[in-house]
Amino acid sequence: MLTSSDKSNQLFLGIDGGGSKCKAIIMNKDNEILGTGISGPGNPLHGFEQATNSITESANLALKDAGLTHIELAELTAGVGLAGVNLPVLFDKMAAWQHPFKAMHLATDLLIACLGAHDGEDGAVIISGTGSCGFACVDEQQTIVGAHGFPHGDKGSGAWFGLQGVKQVLLSLDGIVASTVMSDVLLKKLECKDDTDLVEAVASQKATYYAQQANLVFDAAEQGDKIALAIVNEGAEYINGIARTLMAKNPPRMSMLGGLTPRLKSWLADDIKTALAEPVSSPEVGAVLYARQQHSKHSE
Amino acid sequence: MLTSSDKSNQLFLGIDGGGSKCKAIIMNKDNEILGTGISGPGNPLHGFEQATNSITESANLALKDAGLTHIELAELTAGVGLAGVNLPVLFDKMAAWQHPFKAMHLATDLLIACLGAHDGEDGAVIISGTGSCGFACVDEQQTIVGAHGFPHGDKGSGAWFGLQGVKQVLLSLDGIVASTVMSDVLLKKLECKDDTDLVEAVASQKATYYAQQANLVFDAAEQGDKIALAIVNEGAEYINGIARTLMAKNPPRMSMLGGLTPRLKSWLADDIKTALAEPVSSPEVGAVLYARQQHSKHSE
Repeated sequence: MLTSSDKSNQLFLGIDGGGSKCKAIIMNKDNEILGTGISGPGNPLHGFEQATNSITESANLALKDAGLTHIELAELTAGVGLAGVNLPVLFDKMAAWQHPFKAMHLATDLLIACLGAHDGEDGAVIISGTGSCGFACVDEQQTIVGAHGFPHGDKGSGAWFGLQGVKQVLLSLDGIVASTVMSDVLLKKLECKDDTDLVEAVASQKATYYAQQANLVFDAAEQGDKIALAIVNEGAEYINGIARTLMAKNPPRMSMLGGLTPRLKSWLADDIKTALAEPVSSPEVGAVLYARQQHSKHSE
Repeated sequence: MLTSSDKSNQLFLGIDGGGSKCKAIIMNKDNEILGTGISGPGNPLHGFEQATNSITESANLALKDAGLTHIELAELTAGVGLAGVNLPVLFDKMAAWQHPFKAMHLATDLLIACLGAHDGEDGAVIISGTGSCGFACVDEQQTIVGAHGFPHGDKGSGAWFGLQGVKQVLLSLDGIVASTVMSDVLLKKLECKDDTDLVEAVASQKATYYAQQANLVFDAAEQGDKIALAIVNEGAEYINGIARTLMAKNPPRMSMLGGLTPRLKSWLADDIKTALAEPVSSPEVGAVLYARQQHSKHSE
C-alpha cells in the first residue's frame, strides 16, 4: 500500500458543483477514478455555507468510496468547477474560501464541462439541464453564451420548457388560448383537480421544480400537440442560436451535455445535430484535468 | 362629538391588502372617507404574520388620520380584500385569524376592486399592475381570469413586461437576437456595464423589481424598437383576451385598473378601449361596500 505522502503527490480531487448536487471524484495519475461522492447543492448562488459544506462532504465521501480514509483533504490538489462563479462576486467569494485542500483550482462549471467533454483540449459545449448555456474554449479564449439564470434567462433549459408548459396550461384552462393535451397530464401529475390547485402547486416554485415538468412538454409535442410543438420549436431554435454562436469561434469539437440532451437533441437543426460529437468524459473529470493543467503551470 | 358607541354603529373599515402595501380607510354612513392609512404588504401569500400585522397597522393609522384614536378596532366592522385569498388554503387561513375587529368580511382583492369600480353594482375589471388578471361579478356569479402569479402567469402585467424586457436584452447582448434600444437604457438604469453585471443585478429578483422595468419597454416600443413592440403587442393581446372572456359574461360595466393602465390602455384593441369605463371608486371603498352588503345580509 502506498503511504500517505506518496499518494498525495499523485491524487487529484475533481469537483462538479451544480444547483442540485455536488459530485466529487478521486483520480490517480493514470486518470483512473478511484472513488466518487455526491452531496447537496454546490452552487454558491444559493448560499456560500451550503456550497462549501457540499464540496467538503462530497470530497470526504469520495475518499471513503475509494477506501482512502487515511488520506486527509489537506493532501489533495482539488479542481473545483462551480455553477455561479461566472459571476465575479461569487468567484471572488469562493476563491477566498479557507478551503481544506492542499491547493484549490477554481473554475466555472462550464470550463470543466468543456475540458471533460474534449479530454482537456479546445472545444465547445451546449448545456441544457435545469439551466441552459453555451461555452467555448478556443486558443485560451473563453466564450459564454447564456448562463443567465431562471426565470429571466436559461431559455431552452428544462426549467424553461417546464415553465412554458405550465404557463400555457394555465392560459388554456382560462380559455385564453386553445386547449392542449398537456393540461390533463400536468394536472394529473401534480395531483391537481383544476387551475386553482395548479396555481397553488406552482406558487413560488424554483427552477428544479419546473425542470421536472419538461418531459411532458416533449411528450405532448411528440403527440403533435400544437402548443407543445410551438414551445419545443422555440426552445430548440434558441439552442440552435447558441450552437451557431459557438461554431463561429471555430471549436475543433462540440458536444451537448445536460439532462435534457436526450429529449432536445432530435429537435435541433440538422447541421447542428451533425456537428455534435459525444463527450469524452464527465465535468468532474474535466475538473481534475483543469487542476492538473494549473498544477503543472504553477510548477513550471 | 359622537360617543364611541354611536360611531361604532356607523363606521366601517375598508382594507385593500396587496403584495407591496396595505391600504385602509375609515368611512362614515354617508360614504365619506374620514381617514386613510398605509402600511406594508397585506398579501398572505408572502406570510400570514406580515399580512395580519399590516392590516392592523393600516387600520390604526387610518383611525389616527381620522382623529378617532378613542375608537377601538373592536368597534369597527371591517371589509377586508386581500390578494392571494383566491387560493382556498389562504382564504381559510385568513378567515381563521383571531382579528381585532367587531366583525371581518373577507373577500378577494378582485371582488373589492370590482365593487369599488362599479359602486357596488355588477361589473368587470381588468387589472394590470405588478400582476395581472380579469374579474367579473354578474348576477352573483364570479369569474376570475388569470391571477396566476409570477413568473408562471401574470402575462401582460408590469412584472411580465419587465421580465420580457430583461430577457430580450440578455439575448441581444449575447448576440442571439437583434440588438434593441432597451439594452443601453436598461444597463444604465440598473448601473450595469455589461451582461454579467445585469445577470448579477436581476438574480433572484421578484415581481415588484421586474415591474419597475416595465416603463422602459413601453418607452422603447413608442420609439419603434421592434423587440419592445413585439413584447408590448404580445402583452396587450393577452389583456385583449382577458377582456373578451369577461365581456362574454355580459357585465353592465367594465373598467381597467392597476399601475400599468396608463401605459397599456392605448395598446389594446379599439373595441376594448371603447368598452372601458372609468372606475367610480377605489378598491378600499369597494371593501367597505362589501362589508355593508354582508352586514345588512346578516342583519336581515
